[in-house]
Amino acid sequence: MTTNVRSYAATSATSPLGPYTLARRSTRKDDVVIDILYCGVCHSDLHTARNDWGWSSYPVVPGHEIVGRVLSVGSDVKKFKAGDIVGVGCMVDSCGHCEACDEGHEQFCTEGMTVTYGGVDRIDGTQTHGGYSEKIVVKEGFVVRIPETLDLKATAPLLCAGITTWSPLRNWGAGPGKKVAVVGLGGLGHMALKLAKAMGAEVTLFTRSKGKEEDARRLGADHVVISSNPAGMAAVAGQFHLIVDTVPYVHDLNPYIPTLHYKGALVLVGYLGPLDPMLNTVPMILGDKVVAGSLIGGIARYAGNARFLWRTWHHFGR
Amino acid sequence: MTTNVRSYAATSATSPLGPYTLARRSTRKDDVVIDILYCGVCHSDLHTARNDWGWSSYPVVPGHEIVGRVLSVGSDVKKFKAGDIVGVGCMVDSCGHCEACDEGHEQFCTEGMTVTYGGVDRIDGTQTHGGYSEKIVVKEGFVVRIPETLDLKATAPLLCAGITTWSPLRNWGAGPGKKVAVVGLGGLGHMALKLAKAMGAEVTLFTRSKGKEEDARRLGADHVVISSNPAGMAAVAGQFHLIVDTVPYVHDLNPYIPTLHYKGALVLVGYLGPLDPMLNTVPMILGDKVVAGSLIGGIARYAGNARFLWRTWHHFGR
Repeated sequence: MTTNVRSYAATSATSPLGPYTLARRSTRKDDVVIDILYCGVCHSDLHTARNDWGWSSYPVVPGHEIVGRVLSVGSDVKKFKAGDIVGVGCMVDSCGHCEACDEGHEQFCTEGMTVTYGGVDRIDGTQTHGGYSEKIVVKEGFVVRIPETLDLKATAPLLCAGITTWSPLRNWGAGPGKKVAVVGLGGLGHMALKLAKAMGAEVTLFTRSKGKEEDARRLGADHVVISSNPAGMAAVAGQFHLIVDTVPYVHDLNPYIPTLHYKGALVLVGYLGPLDPMLNTVPMILGDKVVAGSLIGGIARYAGNARFLWRTWHHFGR
Repeated sequence: MTTNVRSYAATSATSPLGPYTLARRSTRKDDVVIDILYCGVCHSDLHTARNDWGWSSYPVVPGHEIVGRVLSVGSDVKKFKAGDIVGVGCMVDSCGHCEACDEGHEQFCTEGMTVTYGGVDRIDGTQTHGGYSEKIVVKEGFVVRIPETLDLKATAPLLCAGITTWSPLRNWGAGPGKKVAVVGLGGLGHMALKLAKAMGAEVTLFTRSKGKEEDARRLGADHVVISSNPAGMAAVAGQFHLIVDTVPYVHDLNPYIPTLHYKGALVLVGYLGPLDPMLNTVPMILGDKVVAGSLIGGIARYAGNARFLWRTWHHFGR
């Protein structure tokens, strides 16, 4: 039997979000019922509300940076009990048996991950709805534990923006002795900067805006380089083991490649589209350099060794 | 005291190579004097002879795929003695103390590697000259041992084409259980294909030429995919852990990225220049996929665990 909960939904690409009564599914054996305490606002929520990607289905309740308290659990749930503080990110299900799922990279499930809102439930075929609501019902395997000692409202963005920057920082070896640069100081960029710093890396912010320097330093940047200044860029040639590029709009990657250390990687987490102007391979080949993409992160990245994600965040403060 | 040796040199960008009497330097304490038995012809030799890259200085004796027998050694040389079969590749010196040199990646020496021909000797400032000659004098650290049991004339190309394909195959984990594709069946491509196969990978050739299928299978390809056929490309979506792209001319990478496995890498070893048409980041981000460059390989890649390079080549035959 479904349960009606209050929510905010987009009902078309042009109307503002409004109150909506959402029917949450009855609890399955492996489900966790969560009383939502906080939900971050991700740019993806806006894209979906506005149908920017062309695949929105209305009404839709956005929100995939969810922190809440467990209300009840299904009979097979082992990891959680009522009262636990938990989070839900961008995924709520996947096939569970393909190579990607086996390896803990559910975001690359060969059958496609089930996204938290605007996706299709794998069991009953209904549309999924996200965290702009009072309660959510999520399969145990896609719920992550969150330390109660954290400032929970500030923790919510870790469920998407956090994992999106944390995952490449881990995958590409950010840590002590490594120089990490972050391109852009927005929602993703400020998080990449703080996490990289807390992981022990020497951190540089690339920005076009001098006005962001003070914020960057407060957030932990050791250096700030104005990316539109060729002399400043030349001064950091060959330095960075990792550049996390968070810019969500088309921009020229070519000035950044020479600033990579040999075998260094520039990882794109923000920009989806053609690289205009064209990427030049010369400095890539002459330094075994890498340009890569990265998409959120698997559940193990939060919940396993990535308990460190929460600790890193907590320790470093905001 | 220098020794005159016979050689073939380019004396201008337009004249054919011709006989040239080359003065080889006297033996330094750490030098190995090599009687050249075979030297491969690399496309770089032609580029240099024709000044395609604009930095040629004439006369120049090309050749950096050198196999020979040690004639004599300097007083400090420990690793080689007269009679040993040895090879010399694209580098003959580097600073020896920077991070790249310390890590065995001399090709990325921060002071610049000394290339085998057309470079500048770090001690006496004279121009270096390559293997289209009777003898060469090379610092011990840039000479590699070659098993006498190999077919030496067929081994010479390993010193450049071999290491250029071997290095990314090793760096990006080619081996049993991995699917490797090679783009192009030229000088680099046929070698990448053979080496990947001998390393235990399942190997696919991407080619536009149906006529190359028979050669590819004879060289060890398990599969051949005609890259201009969209249906054939779609049939291998998501498959390859590694693609070694050996094409030396501008070409569209976009059809290949979807054929990468998640977290797979396309490594460019041939094409230097802007990626036209523009590389689209969407499939890169949606699969944590990588586009990288790769430049020859460090000395340790031949001489250390890469003794396997020789063994692989020998075992698999030609």
